[in-house]
Amino acid sequence: MSKLRFHISVSLDGYVAGPDQSEENPLGVGGEDLHQWVVELEAWRQQHGLDGGEVNVSTPVVEEALSNVGATVMGRNMFGGGPGPWSDDPPWNGWWGDNPPFHTPVFVLTHHPREPLEMEGGTTFIFVTEGIEPALEQAKRAAAGQDVVIGGGANVVQQYLAAGLVDEFELHVVPILLSDGERLLANVGRIGVEQVRAIEAPGVTHVKYRAAK
Amino acid sequence: MSKLRFHISVSLDGYVAGPDQSEENPLGVGGEDLHQWVVELEAWRQQHGLDGGEVNVSTPVVEEALSNVGATVMGRNMFGGGPGPWSDDPPWNGWWGDNPPFHTPVFVLTHHPREPLEMEGGTTFIFVTEGIEPALEQAKRAAAGQDVVIGGGANVVQQYLAAGLVDEFELHVVPILLSDGERLLANVGRIGVEQVRAIEAPGVTHVKYRAAK
Repeated sequence: MSKLRFHISVSLDGYVAGPDQSEENPLGVGGEDLHQWVVELEAWRQQHGLDGGEVNVSTPVVEEALSNVGATVMGRNMFGGGPGPWSDDPPWNGWWGDNPPFHTPVFVLTHHPREPLEMEGGTTFIFVTEGIEPALEQAKRAAAGQDVVIGGGANVVQQYLAAGLVDEFELHVVPILLSDGERLLANVGRIGVEQVRAIEAPGVTHVKYRAAK
Repeated sequence: MSKLRFHISVSLDGYVAGPDQSEENPLGVGGEDLHQWVVELEAWRQQHGLDGGEVNVSTPVVEEALSNVGATVMGRNMFGGGPGPWSDDPPWNGWWGDNPPFHTPVFVLTHHPREPLEMEGGTTFIFVTEGIEPALEQAKRAAAGQDVVIGGGANVVQQYLAAGLVDEFELHVVPILLSDGERLLANVGRIGVEQVRAIEAPGVTHVKYRAAK
């Protein structure tokens, strides 16, 4: 069955971005450090068209997260940043260049209607103005039995969690304290979760949860 | 060398107590669920003078946390709750009955001077009015080379973390979302930590950290 899931790096104190986020520093102060464990991995670098990289205990975790993905949903800020990019000429096509790392249809939640945007490598951005549930329905249809992954940001993750629509998620808990910034697990209410597994890896602990039955 | 350390159960969203804490419900709404994994363990029950209990992957984690402890420091609320208990006649002797589960000298941070209080089973409560550093010095002297453990609450843990005095800590991450209440890792600044280990256990993940060098 097609699941809705997400996997995200989070600081020990629960932030997915540090304070003082800006267009130059979208992850905020210290936020880059959340992703150090993954950008070093061969599995991640391959997905992004890069050579080299490490293989370690995190490798099968990342491979699993990236496999069986049929569609992606993401927030407008994840796709487009501030108001600037949307009014640019030529129009803004996302942060990722001509060949984005999704290689699936990507449903972007927005209030601004726009024609679908076909990129190289199998990524097509489809702009959905009707809200999170219609976006999920369209994504599930596009995924044709494979899973739908939430690409971020925290706000979109929170909306799907609060609505009880997430089946499974994995937190990559990184040993840093950001102290301030964008918290992941806020505004979601007291939803029930069950621990699926925990894996110790170099510089990160992967903990997977599913929605409680 | 004598370390300052703590180990504490924390919800997936970072709380050590739920919302609406009161004298009848000191852990707040849902807060009791944080401790379900441990109160079922034989290792915990023995320390509290109770029979029976389970042995599982959490057992050596709890045994390690309870071993080599020479002294405890704790906050006034952890010892005494609201203003009520302090003005009781006979005087309030803590939440734990005649034989508290510490079995060490316990240094209680308070603004109210009081004579030391000797209980059964090796626990003596010593009331310190000079602040966290003098309390730690006294505790280290009493511990005579063994470790000093912070007994709680979150506010005292935060003060010692922010002051850079904590050598090591273990979080028992429980798969519940409390959504509101008392957050553990707030107000501590951007202190550096390193991951020591992570252990998956039934209904909890144990992750140990040490202060970065």
